[in-house]
Amino acid sequence: PPRKAAPVENKLPCSLEELFSGSKRKMRISRNVLDPSGKTKNVEEILTIDIKPGWKKGTKITFPEKGHEQPNIIPSDLIFVIEEKPHGIYKRDGNDLVVNRRISLVDALAGTTISLPTLDGRTLTIPVTDVIKPGYEMVVPKEGMPIAKEPGNKGNLRIKFDVKFPSRLTAEQKSSLRQVLGE
Amino acid sequence: PPRKAAPVENKLPCSLEELFSGSKRKMRISRNVLDPSGKTKNVEEILTIDIKPGWKKGTKITFPEKGHEQPNIIPSDLIFVIEEKPHGIYKRDGNDLVVNRRISLVDALAGTTISLPTLDGRTLTIPVTDVIKPGYEMVVPKEGMPIAKEPGNKGNLRIKFDVKFPSRLTAEQKSSLRQVLGE
Repeated sequence: PPRKAAPVENKLPCSLEELFSGSKRKMRISRNVLDPSGKTKNVEEILTIDIKPGWKKGTKITFPEKGHEQPNIIPSDLIFVIEEKPHGIYKRDGNDLVVNRRISLVDALAGTTISLPTLDGRTLTIPVTDVIKPGYEMVVPKEGMPIAKEPGNKGNLRIKFDVKFPSRLTAEQKSSLRQVLGE
Repeated sequence: PPRKAAPVENKLPCSLEELFSGSKRKMRISRNVLDPSGKTKNVEEILTIDIKPGWKKGTKITFPEKGHEQPNIIPSDLIFVIEEKPHGIYKRDGNDLVVNRRISLVDALAGTTISLPTLDGRTLTIPVTDVIKPGYEMVVPKEGMPIAKEPGNKGNLRIKFDVKFPSRLTAEQKSSLRQVLGE
Protein backbone atom coordinates (compact mmCIF):
# COMPACT_ATOMS: atom_id res chain seq x y z
CA PRO A 1 0.00 0.00 0.00
CA PRO A 2 1.32 3.48 -0.77
CA ARG A 3 2.62 5.34 2.25
CA LYS A 4 1.13 8.65 3.38
CA ALA A 5 3.23 11.75 3.97
CA ALA A 6 3.40 13.02 7.58
CA PRO A 7 0.79 15.66 8.42
CA VAL A 8 1.73 19.32 8.22
CA GLU A 9 0.61 21.63 11.04
CA ASN A 10 0.09 25.38 10.77
CA LYS A 11 -0.78 27.81 13.53
CA LEU A 12 -3.98 29.79 13.18
CA PRO A 13 -3.89 32.78 15.56
CA CYS A 14 -7.40 34.00 16.41
CA SER A 15 -8.57 37.00 18.37
CA LEU A 16 -10.78 36.44 21.42
CA GLU A 17 -13.50 38.28 19.49
CA GLU A 18 -13.36 35.64 16.72
CA LEU A 19 -13.44 32.81 19.22
CA PHE A 20 -16.36 34.50 20.98
CA SER A 21 -18.57 35.19 17.98
CA GLY A 22 -17.18 32.67 15.53
CA SER A 23 -15.80 33.58 12.11
CA LYS A 24 -15.06 32.26 8.68
CA ARG A 25 -11.37 32.37 7.82
CA LYS A 26 -10.20 31.87 4.28
CA MET A 27 -6.71 30.42 3.99
CA ARG A 28 -4.84 30.68 0.70
CA ILE A 29 -2.55 27.69 0.23
CA SER A 30 -0.11 26.83 -2.46
CA ARG A 31 0.48 23.18 -3.30
CA ASN A 32 1.94 20.96 -5.96
CA VAL A 33 -0.51 18.70 -7.79
CA LEU A 34 0.06 16.08 -10.44
CA ASP A 35 -1.81 16.40 -13.70
CA PRO A 36 -3.09 13.22 -15.44
CA SER A 37 0.17 12.90 -17.34
CA GLY A 38 2.10 12.86 -14.07
CA LYS A 39 3.57 16.34 -14.45
CA THR A 40 3.84 18.50 -11.32
CA LYS A 41 2.31 21.94 -11.30
CA ASN A 42 1.78 24.47 -8.54
CA VAL A 43 -1.77 25.61 -7.81
CA GLU A 44 -3.33 27.98 -5.32
CA GLU A 45 -6.40 26.96 -3.38
CA ILE A 46 -8.62 28.70 -0.88
CA LEU A 47 -9.60 26.69 2.18
CA THR A 48 -12.41 27.95 4.41
CA ILE A 49 -12.26 27.41 8.16
CA ASP A 50 -15.50 27.86 10.02
CA ILE A 51 -14.41 28.93 13.51
CA LYS A 52 -17.17 28.02 15.99
CA PRO A 53 -17.97 30.21 19.00
CA GLY A 54 -16.14 28.86 22.03
CA TRP A 55 -13.30 27.07 20.26
CA LYS A 56 -10.19 26.86 22.41
CA LYS A 57 -6.51 27.08 21.63
CA GLY A 58 -5.26 23.71 20.51
CA THR A 59 -8.41 22.94 18.51
CA LYS A 60 -7.30 21.25 15.28
CA ILE A 61 -8.94 21.51 11.88
CA THR A 62 -7.79 18.86 9.43
CA PHE A 63 -7.95 19.09 5.64
CA PRO A 64 -7.25 15.53 4.48
CA GLU A 65 -4.62 15.06 1.82
CA LYS A 66 -4.22 18.75 1.07
CA GLY A 67 -0.42 18.57 1.12
CA HIS A 68 1.75 18.41 -1.98
CA GLU A 69 1.00 15.59 -4.40
CA GLN A 70 3.95 13.39 -5.27
CA PRO A 71 4.08 10.20 -7.29
CA ASN A 72 3.29 7.03 -5.32
CA ILE A 73 2.69 8.81 -2.01
CA ILE A 74 -0.64 9.81 -0.46
CA PRO A 75 -0.47 13.58 0.16
CA SER A 76 -0.16 14.70 3.77
CA ASP A 77 -3.10 16.04 5.77
CA LEU A 78 -3.02 19.78 6.30
CA ILE A 79 -3.84 20.73 9.89
CA PHE A 80 -4.57 24.14 11.36
CA VAL A 81 -4.17 24.61 15.12
CA ILE A 82 -6.13 27.39 16.82
CA GLU A 83 -4.05 29.83 18.84
CA GLU A 84 -5.35 32.68 20.98
CA LYS A 85 -3.96 36.13 20.30
CA PRO A 86 -3.42 38.16 23.48
CA HIS A 87 -6.29 40.52 24.22
CA GLY A 88 -5.99 44.05 25.53
CA ILE A 89 -8.48 43.61 28.37
CA TYR A 90 -9.45 40.00 28.89
CA LYS A 91 -7.62 36.82 29.63
CA ARG A 92 -9.34 33.52 28.93
CA ASP A 93 -9.43 30.86 31.62
CA GLY A 94 -11.22 27.86 30.19
CA ASN A 95 -14.76 29.09 29.56
CA ASP A 96 -14.30 32.14 31.79
CA LEU A 97 -13.04 35.58 30.92
CA VAL A 98 -10.87 37.29 33.52
CA VAL A 99 -10.20 41.00 33.77
CA ASN A 100 -8.12 42.96 36.30
CA ARG A 101 -9.52 46.23 37.52
CA ARG A 102 -7.72 48.69 39.77
CA ILE A 103 -10.08 50.95 41.70
CA SER A 104 -9.51 53.74 44.18
CA LEU A 105 -9.98 53.11 47.89
CA VAL A 106 -12.97 55.45 48.01
CA ASP A 107 -14.70 53.53 45.20
CA ALA A 108 -13.84 50.24 46.89
CA LEU A 109 -15.50 51.43 50.09
CA ALA A 110 -18.30 53.70 48.92
CA GLY A 111 -19.25 51.85 45.75
CA THR A 112 -18.86 52.47 42.05
CA THR A 113 -19.99 51.33 38.63
CA ILE A 114 -17.73 49.30 36.37
CA SER A 115 -18.06 49.62 32.59
CA LEU A 116 -16.62 46.88 30.42
CA PRO A 117 -16.80 46.34 26.65
CA THR A 118 -17.91 42.81 25.77
CA LEU A 119 -16.24 40.79 23.02
CA ASP A 120 -19.38 41.14 20.90
CA GLY A 121 -19.44 44.93 21.14
CA ARG A 122 -21.91 45.57 23.96
CA THR A 123 -21.09 47.58 27.06
CA LEU A 124 -21.56 45.90 30.42
CA THR A 125 -22.47 48.22 33.27
CA ILE A 126 -21.89 46.56 36.61
CA PRO A 127 -22.87 48.30 39.84
CA VAL A 128 -20.55 47.54 42.76
CA THR A 129 -22.20 48.03 46.13
CA ASP A 130 -20.33 45.56 48.36
CA VAL A 131 -17.11 46.68 50.00
CA ILE A 132 -14.31 45.59 47.68
CA LYS A 133 -11.37 44.05 49.53
CA PRO A 134 -8.00 43.82 47.77
CA GLY A 135 -7.88 40.60 45.78
CA TYR A 136 -11.67 40.29 45.74
CA GLU A 137 -13.03 38.54 42.67
CA MET A 138 -16.49 39.46 41.42
CA VAL A 139 -18.27 36.94 39.21
CA VAL A 140 -20.66 38.09 36.50
CA PRO A 141 -22.50 34.93 35.41
CA LYS A 142 -22.75 34.00 31.72
CA GLU A 143 -20.63 36.85 30.43
CA GLY A 144 -17.65 34.61 29.69
CA MET A 145 -16.83 32.69 26.52
CA PRO A 146 -19.42 30.59 24.70
CA ILE A 147 -19.14 26.88 25.48
CA ALA A 148 -18.65 25.13 22.14
CA LYS A 149 -20.28 21.89 23.29
CA GLU A 150 -23.26 23.60 24.96
CA PRO A 151 -24.74 25.99 22.40
CA GLY A 152 -26.30 29.01 24.06
CA ASN A 153 -24.40 28.48 27.30
CA LYS A 154 -21.51 30.68 28.41
CA GLY A 155 -18.82 30.76 31.09
CA ASN A 156 -18.50 33.55 33.63
CA LEU A 157 -16.80 36.91 33.60
CA ARG A 158 -14.51 37.30 36.60
CA ILE A 159 -13.38 40.76 37.67
CA LYS A 160 -10.31 40.74 39.92
CA PHE A 161 -10.01 43.91 41.94
CA ASP A 162 -6.91 45.66 43.08
CA VAL A 163 -7.43 48.60 45.46
CA LYS A 164 -5.29 51.69 45.09
CA PHE A 165 -4.62 53.26 48.47
CA PRO A 166 -3.90 56.98 48.80
CA SER A 167 -0.20 57.70 49.25
CA ARG A 168 -0.73 60.12 52.09
CA LEU A 169 -3.57 61.66 54.05
CA THR A 170 -3.76 64.94 55.95
CA ALA A 171 -4.21 65.03 59.71
CA GLU A 172 -7.78 66.25 59.11
CA GLN A 173 -8.56 63.33 56.81
CA LYS A 174 -7.11 60.88 59.34
CA SER A 175 -9.18 62.21 62.18
CA SER A 176 -12.36 62.23 60.04
CA LEU A 177 -11.66 58.65 58.96
CA ARG A 178 -11.27 57.60 62.57
CA GLN A 179 -14.69 59.12 63.26
CA VAL A 180 -16.41 57.61 60.22
CA LEU A 181 -14.94 54.12 60.44
CA GLY A 182 -15.02 54.01 64.23
CA GLU A 183 -12.43 52.51 66.46
CA PRO B 1 45.75 1.88 60.11
CA PRO B 2 42.61 1.32 62.20
CA ARG B 3 39.42 2.44 60.52
CA LYS B 4 37.16 5.07 62.05
CA ALA B 5 33.48 4.51 62.64
CA ALA B 6 31.06 6.67 60.59
CA PRO B 7 29.98 9.89 62.34
CA VAL B 8 26.70 9.94 64.24
CA GLU B 9 24.41 12.96 63.80
CA ASN B 10 21.80 14.15 66.31
CA LYS B 11 19.34 16.98 65.92
CA LEU B 12 19.48 19.82 68.41
CA PRO B 13 16.22 21.79 68.29
CA CYS B 14 16.69 25.36 69.56
CA SER B 15 14.18 28.13 70.19
CA LEU B 16 14.63 31.44 68.37
CA GLU B 17 15.23 32.97 71.80
CA GLU B 18 18.24 30.66 72.33
CA LEU B 19 19.61 31.44 68.89
CA PHE B 20 19.09 35.14 69.56
CA SER B 21 20.73 35.39 72.98
CA GLY B 22 22.90 32.30 72.89
CA SER B 23 22.74 29.54 75.48
CA LYS B 24 24.69 26.73 77.01
CA ARG B 25 23.08 23.34 76.46
CA LYS B 26 24.20 20.32 78.41
CA MET B 27 23.69 17.03 76.60
CA ARG B 28 23.78 13.80 78.54
CA ILE B 29 25.13 11.00 76.40
CA SER B 30 25.56 7.31 77.12
CA ARG B 31 28.45 5.45 75.47
CA ASN B 32 30.44 2.27 75.69
CA VAL B 33 34.08 2.66 76.63
CA LEU B 34 36.84 0.07 76.92
CA ASP B 35 38.71 -0.18 80.18
CA PRO B 36 42.48 -0.89 80.14
CA SER B 37 41.80 -4.61 80.27
CA GLY B 38 39.70 -4.36 77.13
CA LYS B 39 36.35 -4.87 78.86
CA THR B 40 33.37 -2.80 77.66
CA LYS B 41 31.43 -0.73 80.09
CA ASN B 42 28.70 1.84 79.66
CA VAL B 43 29.30 5.36 80.98
CA GLU B 44 27.30 8.57 80.97
CA GLU B 45 28.93 11.83 80.02
CA ILE B 46 27.77 15.43 79.93
CA LEU B 47 28.72 17.40 76.83
CA THR B 48 28.32 21.17 76.87
CA ILE B 49 27.30 23.00 73.71
CA ASP B 50 27.87 26.74 73.71
CA ILE B 51 25.22 28.07 71.32
CA LYS B 52 26.42 31.39 69.93
CA PRO B 53 24.01 34.25 69.20
CA GLY B 54 23.04 34.15 65.54
CA TRP B 55 23.70 30.47 64.83
CA LYS B 56 21.55 29.16 62.02
CA LYS B 57 19.83 25.87 61.45
CA GLY B 58 22.27 23.41 59.95
CA THR B 59 25.18 24.60 62.11
CA LYS B 60 27.13 21.51 63.18
CA ILE B 61 28.96 21.00 66.44
CA THR B 62 31.37 18.06 66.40
CA PHE B 63 32.64 16.13 69.42
CA PRO B 64 35.49 14.08 68.02
CA GLU B 65 35.52 10.37 68.83
CA LYS B 66 32.69 10.52 71.35
CA GLY B 67 30.92 7.49 69.86
CA HIS B 68 31.09 4.01 71.33
CA GLU B 69 34.56 2.57 71.82
CA GLN B 70 35.14 -0.81 70.18
CA PRO B 71 38.35 -2.82 69.86
CA ASN B 72 40.49 -1.88 66.85
CA ILE B 73 38.19 0.88 65.62
CA ILE B 74 38.51 4.62 66.20
CA PRO B 75 35.22 5.77 67.79
CA SER B 76 32.88 7.81 65.63
CA ASP B 77 32.57 11.57 65.90
CA LEU B 78 29.39 12.75 67.58
CA ILE B 79 27.76 15.64 65.71
CA PHE B 80 24.90 17.89 66.79
CA VAL B 81 22.98 19.77 64.11
CA ILE B 82 21.14 22.95 65.08
CA GLU B 83 17.44 23.04 64.21
CA GLU B 84 15.06 25.95 64.68
CA LYS B 85 11.89 25.34 66.63
CA PRO B 86 8.88 27.16 65.21
CA HIS B 87 8.18 30.44 66.99
CA GLY B 88 4.76 31.79 67.91
CA ILE B 89 5.32 35.23 66.41
CA TYR B 90 8.46 35.41 64.30
CA LYS B 91 9.80 33.60 61.32
CA ARG B 92 13.50 33.77 60.61
CA ASP B 93 14.67 34.69 57.12
CA GLY B 94 18.45 34.57 57.12
CA ASN B 95 19.48 37.32 59.53
CA ASP B 96 16.04 38.96 59.43
CA LEU B 97 13.01 38.33 61.57
CA VAL B 98 9.64 38.47 59.82
CA VAL B 99 6.28 38.99 61.49
CA ASN B 100 2.80 39.23 59.97
CA ARG B 101 0.47 41.82 61.40
CA ARG B 102 -3.17 42.25 60.46
CA ILE B 103 -4.49 45.74 61.13
CA SER B 104 -7.87 47.36 60.63
CA LEU B 105 -8.47 49.65 57.68
CA VAL B 106 -8.89 52.64 59.97
CA ASP B 107 -5.51 51.98 61.61
CA ALA B 108 -3.94 51.45 58.18
CA LEU B 109 -5.21 54.84 57.07
CA ALA B 110 -5.19 56.96 60.20
CA GLY B 111 -2.10 55.50 61.84
CA THR B 112 -1.44 53.28 64.83
CA THR B 113 1.24 51.99 67.12
CA ILE B 114 2.54 48.43 66.88
CA SER B 115 3.82 46.67 70.00
CA LEU B 116 6.04 43.64 69.57
CA PRO B 117 7.92 41.56 72.15
CA THR B 118 11.58 41.07 71.20
CA LEU B 119 13.33 37.72 71.55
CA ASP B 120 15.39 39.12 74.43
CA GLY B 121 12.35 40.23 76.40
CA ARG B 122 12.06 43.91 75.52
CA THR B 123 8.95 45.49 74.04
CA LEU B 124 9.28 47.33 70.76
CA THR B 125 6.88 50.21 70.27
CA ILE B 126 6.69 51.20 66.62
CA PRO B 127 4.65 54.23 65.54
CA VAL B 128 3.04 53.82 62.12
CA THR B 129 2.27 57.12 60.46
CA ASP B 130 2.48 56.28 56.76
CA VAL B 131 -0.61 54.92 55.02
CA ILE B 132 -0.30 51.12 55.15
CA LYS B 133 -1.21 49.45 51.87
CA PRO B 134 -2.07 45.75 51.86
CA GLY B 135 1.13 43.75 51.49
CA TYR B 136 3.28 46.67 52.67
CA GLU B 137 6.45 45.61 54.46
CA MET B 138 7.87 47.87 57.13
CA VAL B 139 11.54 47.43 57.99
CA VAL B 140 12.81 48.10 61.50
CA PRO B 141 16.62 48.16 61.19
CA LYS B 142 18.81 46.09 63.51
CA GLU B 143 15.97 44.37 65.35
CA GLY B 144 16.50 41.05 63.57
CA MET B 145 18.77 38.17 64.57
CA PRO B 146 22.37 38.69 65.68
CA ILE B 147 24.87 37.99 62.89
CA ALA B 148 27.21 35.30 64.24
CA LYS B 149 30.15 36.43 62.12
CA GLU B 150 29.69 40.14 62.88
CA PRO B 151 29.48 40.47 66.67
CA GLY B 152 27.26 43.39 67.69
CA ASN B 153 25.57 43.56 64.29
CA LYS B 154 22.00 42.43 63.68
CA GLY B 155 19.64 41.83 60.76
CA ASN B 156 16.35 43.67 60.34
CA LEU B 157 12.87 43.12 61.64
CA ARG B 158 10.34 43.08 58.81
CA ILE B 159 6.66 43.63 59.56
CA LYS B 160 4.34 42.45 56.79
CA PHE B 161 0.96 44.10 56.95
CA ASP B 162 -2.39 42.71 56.00
CA VAL B 163 -5.30 45.17 56.06
CA LYS B 164 -8.68 44.02 57.32
CA PHE B 165 -11.47 45.76 55.42
CA PRO B 166 -14.89 46.28 57.00
CA SER B 167 -17.46 43.78 55.74
CA ARG B 168 -20.10 46.40 55.15
CA LEU B 169 -20.63 50.11 55.57
CA THR B 170 -23.79 52.12 56.05
CA ALA B 171 -24.99 54.61 53.47
CA GLU B 172 -23.98 57.40 55.88
CA GLN B 173 -20.47 56.00 56.24
CA LYS B 174 -20.14 55.69 52.46
CA SER B 175 -21.19 59.25 51.83
CA SER B 176 -18.88 60.56 54.57
CA LEU B 177 -16.00 58.53 53.11
CA ARG B 178 -16.63 60.01 49.69
CA GLN B 179 -16.41 63.47 51.27
CA VAL B 180 -13.27 62.74 53.29
CA LEU B 181 -11.31 60.85 50.65
CA GLY B 182 -12.52 63.01 47.76
CA GLU B 183 -13.40 61.86 44.32
